[in-house]
Amino acid sequence: MSNRTLIRGGLVVTAADEMHADVLVEDGRIAALAAHNSPVAQTWTAARTIDATNKYVLPGGVDVHTHMELPFGGTFASDTFETGTRAAAWGGTTTIIDFAVQSVGRALREGLDAWYAKADGNCAIDYGFHMILSDVNEQSLKEMDLLVEEGVTSFKLFMAYPGVFYSDDGRILRAMQRSAVNGGLIMMHAENGIAIDVLVEQALAEGRTDPRYHGEVRKVLLEAEATHRAIQLARVAGAPLYVVHVSAEEAVAELATARDKGLPVFGETCPQYLFLSTDNLAEPGFEGAKYVCSTPLRPREHQAALWRGLRTNDLQVVSTDHCPFCFTGQKELGRGDFSKIPNGLPGVENRMDLLHQAVVDGHISRRRWIEIACATPARMFGLYPKKGTIAPGADADIVIYDPHAEQTLSVQTQHMNVDYSAYEGRRITGQVETVLSRGEVVIDARTFTGRAGHGVYTPRSTCQYLN
Amino acid sequence: MSNRTLIRGGLVVTAADEMHADVLVEDGRIAALAAHNSPVAQTWTAARTIDATNKYVLPGGVDVHTHMELPFGGTFASDTFETGTRAAAWGGTTTIIDFAVQSVGRALREGLDAWYAKADGNCAIDYGFHMILSDVNEQSLKEMDLLVEEGVTSFKLFMAYPGVFYSDDGRILRAMQRSAVNGGLIMMHAENGIAIDVLVEQALAEGRTDPRYHGEVRKVLLEAEATHRAIQLARVAGAPLYVVHVSAEEAVAELATARDKGLPVFGETCPQYLFLSTDNLAEPGFEGAKYVCSTPLRPREHQAALWRGLRTNDLQVVSTDHCPFCFTGQKELGRGDFSKIPNGLPGVENRMDLLHQAVVDGHISRRRWIEIACATPARMFGLYPKKGTIAPGADADIVIYDPHAEQTLSVQTQHMNVDYSAYEGRRITGQVETVLSRGEVVIDARTFTGRAGHGVYTPRSTCQYLN
Amino acid sequence: MSNRTLIRGGLVVTAADEMHADVLVEDGRIAALAAHNSPVAQTWTAARTIDATNKYVLPGGVDVHTHMELPFGGTFASDTFETGTRAAAWGGTTTIIDFAVQSVGRALREGLDAWYAKADGNCAIDYGFHMILSDVNEQSLKEMDLLVEEGVTSFKLFMAYPGVFYSDDGRILRAMQRSAVNGGLIMMHAENGIAIDVLVEQALAEGRTDPRYHGEVRKVLLEAEATHRAIQLARVAGAPLYVVHVSAEEAVAELATARDKGLPVFGETCPQYLFLSTDNLAEPGFEGAKYVCSTPLRPREHQAALWRGLRTNDLQVVSTDHCPFCFTGQKELGRGDFSKIPNGLPGVENRMDLLHQAVVDGHISRRRWIEIACATPARMFGLYPKKGTIAPGADADIVIYDPHAEQTLSVQTQHMNVDYSAYEGRRITGQVETVLSRGEVVIDARTFTGRAGHGVYTPRSTCQYLN
Amino acid sequence: MSNRTLIRGGLVVTAADEMHADVLVEDGRIAALAAHNSPVAQTWTAARTIDATNKYVLPGGVDVHTHMELPFGGTFASDTFETGTRAAAWGGTTTIIDFAVQSVGRALREGLDAWYAKADGNCAIDYGFHMILSDVNEQSLKEMDLLVEEGVTSFKLFMAYPGVFYSDDGRILRAMQRSAVNGGLIMMHAENGIAIDVLVEQALAEGRTDPRYHGEVRKVLLEAEATHRAIQLARVAGAPLYVVHVSAEEAVAELATARDKGLPVFGETCPQYLFLSTDNLAEPGFEGAKYVCSTPLRPREHQAALWRGLRTNDLQVVSTDHCPFCFTGQKELGRGDFSKIPNGLPGVENRMDLLHQAVVDGHISRRRWIEIACATPARMFGLYPKKGTIAPGADADIVIYDPHAEQTLSVQTQHMNVDYSAYEGRRITGQVETVLSRGEVVIDARTFTGRAGHGVYTPRSTCQYLN
Repeated sequence: MSNRTLIRGGLVVTAADEMHADVLVEDGRIAALAAHNSPVAQTWTAARTIDATNKYVLPGGVDVHTHMELPFGGTFASDTFETGTRAAAWGGTTTIIDFAVQSVGRALREGLDAWYAKADGNCAIDYGFHMILSDVNEQSLKEMDLLVEEGVTSFKLFMAYPGVFYSDDGRILRAMQRSAVNGGLIMMHAENGIAIDVLVEQALAEGRTDPRYHGEVRKVLLEAEATHRAIQLARVAGAPLYVVHVSAEEAVAELATARDKGLPVFGETCPQYLFLSTDNLAEPGFEGAKYVCSTPLRPREHQAALWRGLRTNDLQVVSTDHCPFCFTGQKELGRGDFSKIPNGLPGVENRMDLLHQAVVDGHISRRRWIEIACATPARMFGLYPKKGTIAPGADADIVIYDPHAEQTLSVQTQHMNVDYSAYEGRRITGQVETVLSRGEVVIDARTFTGRAGHGVYTPRSTCQYLN
Repeated sequence: MSNRTLIRGGLVVTAADEMHADVLVEDGRIAALAAHNSPVAQTWTAARTIDATNKYVLPGGVDVHTHMELPFGGTFASDTFETGTRAAAWGGTTTIIDFAVQSVGRALREGLDAWYAKADGNCAIDYGFHMILSDVNEQSLKEMDLLVEEGVTSFKLFMAYPGVFYSDDGRILRAMQRSAVNGGLIMMHAENGIAIDVLVEQALAEGRTDPRYHGEVRKVLLEAEATHRAIQLARVAGAPLYVVHVSAEEAVAELATARDKGLPVFGETCPQYLFLSTDNLAEPGFEGAKYVCSTPLRPREHQAALWRGLRTNDLQVVSTDHCPFCFTGQKELGRGDFSKIPNGLPGVENRMDLLHQAVVDGHISRRRWIEIACATPARMFGLYPKKGTIAPGADADIVIYDPHAEQTLSVQTQHMNVDYSAYEGRRITGQVETVLSRGEVVIDARTFTGRAGHGVYTPRSTCQYLN
Repeated sequence: MSNRTLIRGGLVVTAADEMHADVLVEDGRIAALAAHNSPVAQTWTAARTIDATNKYVLPGGVDVHTHMELPFGGTFASDTFETGTRAAAWGGTTTIIDFAVQSVGRALREGLDAWYAKADGNCAIDYGFHMILSDVNEQSLKEMDLLVEEGVTSFKLFMAYPGVFYSDDGRILRAMQRSAVNGGLIMMHAENGIAIDVLVEQALAEGRTDPRYHGEVRKVLLEAEATHRAIQLARVAGAPLYVVHVSAEEAVAELATARDKGLPVFGETCPQYLFLSTDNLAEPGFEGAKYVCSTPLRPREHQAALWRGLRTNDLQVVSTDHCPFCFTGQKELGRGDFSKIPNGLPGVENRMDLLHQAVVDGHISRRRWIEIACATPARMFGLYPKKGTIAPGADADIVIYDPHAEQTLSVQTQHMNVDYSAYEGRRITGQVETVLSRGEVVIDARTFTGRAGHGVYTPRSTCQYLN
Repeated sequence: MSNRTLIRGGLVVTAADEMHADVLVEDGRIAALAAHNSPVAQTWTAARTIDATNKYVLPGGVDVHTHMELPFGGTFASDTFETGTRAAAWGGTTTIIDFAVQSVGRALREGLDAWYAKADGNCAIDYGFHMILSDVNEQSLKEMDLLVEEGVTSFKLFMAYPGVFYSDDGRILRAMQRSAVNGGLIMMHAENGIAIDVLVEQALAEGRTDPRYHGEVRKVLLEAEATHRAIQLARVAGAPLYVVHVSAEEAVAELATARDKGLPVFGETCPQYLFLSTDNLAEPGFEGAKYVCSTPLRPREHQAALWRGLRTNDLQVVSTDHCPFCFTGQKELGRGDFSKIPNGLPGVENRMDLLHQAVVDGHISRRRWIEIACATPARMFGLYPKKGTIAPGADADIVIYDPHAEQTLSVQTQHMNVDYSAYEGRRITGQVETVLSRGEVVIDARTFTGRAGHGVYTPRSTCQYLN
């Protein structure tokens, strides 16, 4: 009994079902669900009972795209694993998958071990790793196989950032061929960085140095082109493909075309593309720098295509690409040269709320909210059914969500370690109230009760959309 | 306790989840699920315990397209509600939605009441009704509103069969406009019947009278054309659309195009299009008549497109269009004139098994099987969450399925009231073992223990895929 | 020598070539072209020499869609063959193809003979006939064959106007099948008239009776739908198809899709769709009635798609659909009921000028102007190389065109027998100066020197774009 | 009179017209055309009269893609400008555009001058040059402007051949941006060479070294991908694009999609793709090496798409990519390693005949033959109306073609300087009889009467399909 928690009276929402059900947690796992007020439910007792009347009972969020402490452009993302995962918990996210980085010329192992060390003992919630492949060669291809077995089953490649993370089409093809054999999933940053760098150089040479030019040079057509190319290379390799942070309507169209053919091609977008636009990049002074990320924010018209893609399942996942840099001292590195602004936005704390707002606004249904934010991310990266659902046997990662609460997003109230909010002043209906991570209450009626080190590394199986 | 049944040790498969869970049934509903061997599960007791070890525990199948006792071409479909629903139960289907027919010049009410009467007291499983609109006019449009409120929330129109069920585009548009207001869902038989009838007449005049010409005159392009037209009319009306028995690759393409645009357009296919082909229509003698249905069977190449459509969710539902006619005495009416062969195939008993075979063959995943055969049909026609899932609060319509059993489909062993099997001799892996309908065992280890009259009429809410 | 005319010093423009060449006319035909100032050209003498220095020398226009004296809606198009063909000559058009009409229940012969009689002895320029099929049946299908042999090689069908010209899909299919055999070309008015009539009835019932509602009820989607359907029926029949007066972007898209597949599908548009829009239909008072035609004028955005279609050859022909009705006494029949406004606009005199303006505006090239207005219409309907080009052996139908003249279109200055201009006040660069019809000068430096009866009936071969 | 030639009684065929006309040549140019037997024609006299009765009178062929004496893979294409242009004349081609090559690190000027020198005084027919850009940099971009003014108005870039001709996407973008300003036309070899080289390396490592693997590694998807990418880059640059030697159906589809949007994107194919296939590459022994070229030959199914593209104008030009290497001593360099086989086929002599065979076979019309082989190539590369048509003022480059002659293609009878024919034994209906180059007879009833040095360098204006 002492290891039991009972959540009573809420509306359990999963990707598939909505049910008035009581949830019984035993030993950190979901033991049972019973119809509320059913005879069997009435017999249940527990050490702790949480009243969820008029609340939603949700699976904890799964954010598959974060960059805690990422070194980038001579600085580091401002959230550590400690601050970032705590903020995630505040926002109703109970699992993140972060990106370990291979340095050019070094082993995957070395990069991965460095990231294990950064996270170990510091996380408030569970976590896993993808691996960024910066240097595809015979040795790193062999290491891929080992990592897949070890539970690092996804590998990110960049068609952007020449000289940094960039891989040419030959390296991409080789990595895809390998993934076709070892079951790994290639995640692609799809922008034609070689062409973009020409436009960057021309813009700077012509004195177009403000943040808004970041959006202008990273053209929609060059995202769509790279998306198309990545798909074709995946077809040649016979491999699946997951395209990260899709922002342009034309890129969604490439995914839709591929999916209509039945190809195993997947796409993710992020809240910043759904809620922000080039209008933000063009904010006066140097304010636009707060919104510099890649792929860049797009004109507002693209938002409708992204929402439609989420509804039609041409996009399957919403992650954050959380990669915060403080305005003061970090974003400012790019004054007078937008190409020197560190790329990235804070967001790990805001995702579940922003998507609930999308439910309120009618963009998506309640179940689709959970599907794109919890269930599909978990399945896509081999965490299901431990994560992403509320079902007997799953980890008791549970969010009690108040759909009627009103809040205003602000740097004043957020918990991410960054000096601004990308959504400053935005009013949201709905708020996380209580969060359980493997049965332990880490947010209790909006008080943080968790601790660094509660979160554990979670090895993953391969993508569960392939068979 | 006496009203309790416990299903132990099986793998519960729903559209969303697979879990080793025990299922507790109380008072005809699913009361609770608990992780197998969890402490809480071990405390459960019941009047009856079913051992499902090594078996699947599935939601009962929902077949949304049957025609029991349908008058057609001067005869009647050979399964009554009694024989047909009993066969459905044998096949693991626990809910059907049949089609009540409005006669031209008569009220919807009259047709619906006739069908209520046919079914009442005769069904082994639960059932609902769609309404066939044969005569769209001011009066019948007003009646649509009443029927939606009454729980008959879907209305079938025919672009085929001029002079019988056919509606012209104006009537279709009017009915769609009405459904846009009252929440009904228009179901469309999409074939250009006016053009087809010209080809029928020409074929017969030229002596092309064998069953295979049924397939030749009902051309792929004329299904695709009508599908496109129905979609455009629905766009004009601002209404959703559900296309029945999609058989042609080109028709799937029309649906995919519409869905990529985010339109509320849905499609169903049937096992006969997935497993049979024009090769069957061309069987020697008059054997091809057994396979005469409309839309017709297509060349084998179309099957791949249908499977792909089911995987990509461009097709959402597999129903049977069960409409059996005996070869002797019924199909034979069309000897020497294929246009006189009653249109329809038996299948209500075979659907769940054939689709499990598709799982075995790798066409679809296990969860997708349940989605297209149980969950989505239930949602599409407003029966969820009573039907289509295994979740606390749902009706205890449950199938214990043995995935390892081997069976051979045959008229010898089937329970449908018809003198042939469309799948004679086909070997299947997997078989229904035990079936519960609202908690009552109607098939018990392959013995029928149900009864006519157990099944009840089930009014439906409107389509659950809109907003 | 006395039968010789020499046109010196102009720029000869054909669909294929632009050349500074002298043109020698002998006996009503083009005898020779020689490079201007070449030795051979300098030897040429003629009874009449026309100085075309700084002018264009063009093939006479071919307008393949006119309705002189058409009975419609209880009245008649206001141009007779005499007034209409004279106006055509003024506008640089030297050949028209008008539509003879079969009445329901009557023979094609009877209709055709009536139109022969109307035109005979009255025309200022040459003319041919298409046949409107109002009643497809065994008899009229047989007559089609005879008409093709006689030189009436194209047949118009209507998917609009139920109860008047409308043919259902079965009749359309039969006529297409016949044309596939006899070489005729089916011309299609592609609008879903059955659906439109529902919307008309609803609009009138709701008091939406102004001319602008004519445009609203004849929806873009219903033109695109009918275009798609006509194409599919033509594919079933194995017949070519020519879609008349295409006005909607979505209809152009259907044509483009068909043509990408290599199908023999053709499309025409008209100046009114290129230069006017729903803004005109919404002009205050009852002025909008002047612009009522079907297909209707569309929102301005569609114009870009039409111009693009003309450039990409997804549209091949610009005709006028000239069908004038006076505002006073004719258009006024529809006050208070837009459905009673006679459908049609005047335009036969304006086409060549408006399209030259499009050259000036950069929409099309000079050669494309001649291609869509002269050469392709002639080839499409079997008049080439007699008509549509300037080449040895062709009829000497020649326009001397001043590309630098400035004019203002107006009812004050036009020659069409109608009390308004659809282009009132529009300024045009370029004007017809002199026109020859089979070597005879019918417009001489902007004086009409022709006569009723000069024009002769011109039988046609079949479409020259097939095989 | 002494400078006059008269061609009597033939059927003059141009891209636009077919006419029974006599053609009068004065001073190397076409002075006049007159209707055969017209009074004016009967007055004509000339020093030389050629009887073309029952023959075609055609514009001389324009082959815009040849590589005489090209250094490639350590050897040289076996036809010099002397042997190659003589063979061209034999085949009815009177103008070639060859490719001058910039070496990496050197000036365009240097390469161009080298090619001027190679050709000067050696050619039997007229010629121009494109420039291969091997090294895009500030200097070479500036030189592009000068070359355009000089009459070298088109520039070839390679997405294939890394380390040799390859340009990355940034260089491509820069060159396209420059061409958008200076009016040049970028010609693209569209294959993803970076990815292909990975597949080549893998094939060789696995012992797949035969010629047929050349076709397997250069995958259809990698041609289509590069075609798509080139189009997108051209859109970003606002530049037109001409894709050379299109061979794959999927690449044609990319062009069709772009052209439907109205983009200035053009495509050429070659006879080898229309008449040969991977069957040839797989010929036994090392015979397949004769057919090694890039893009490679494709499976036969692709031919239908290429013919359709030529009919729908999604492909506009047929050139030869003539680049012969002898089997003995040259092709043999690649025994045991297909990647060492010099890439290229002989064909400059065969193009007009093979395309006439396509007319006989019904793939294209007679006028389309002339359009894709003479008129459009001339317009595309700024040679019109001097070249590509028969019209007053044009150069008297004329072919008298016997459409009834029968011939068999063979190394025995060909005039190209290479030890095999790619079409050995193929029977052709039609043959060149007599050829005039600027009025001078260079082939006289199948005797070569021309001379090295008759042909002159012909500077070109910019692409005539842009405006």
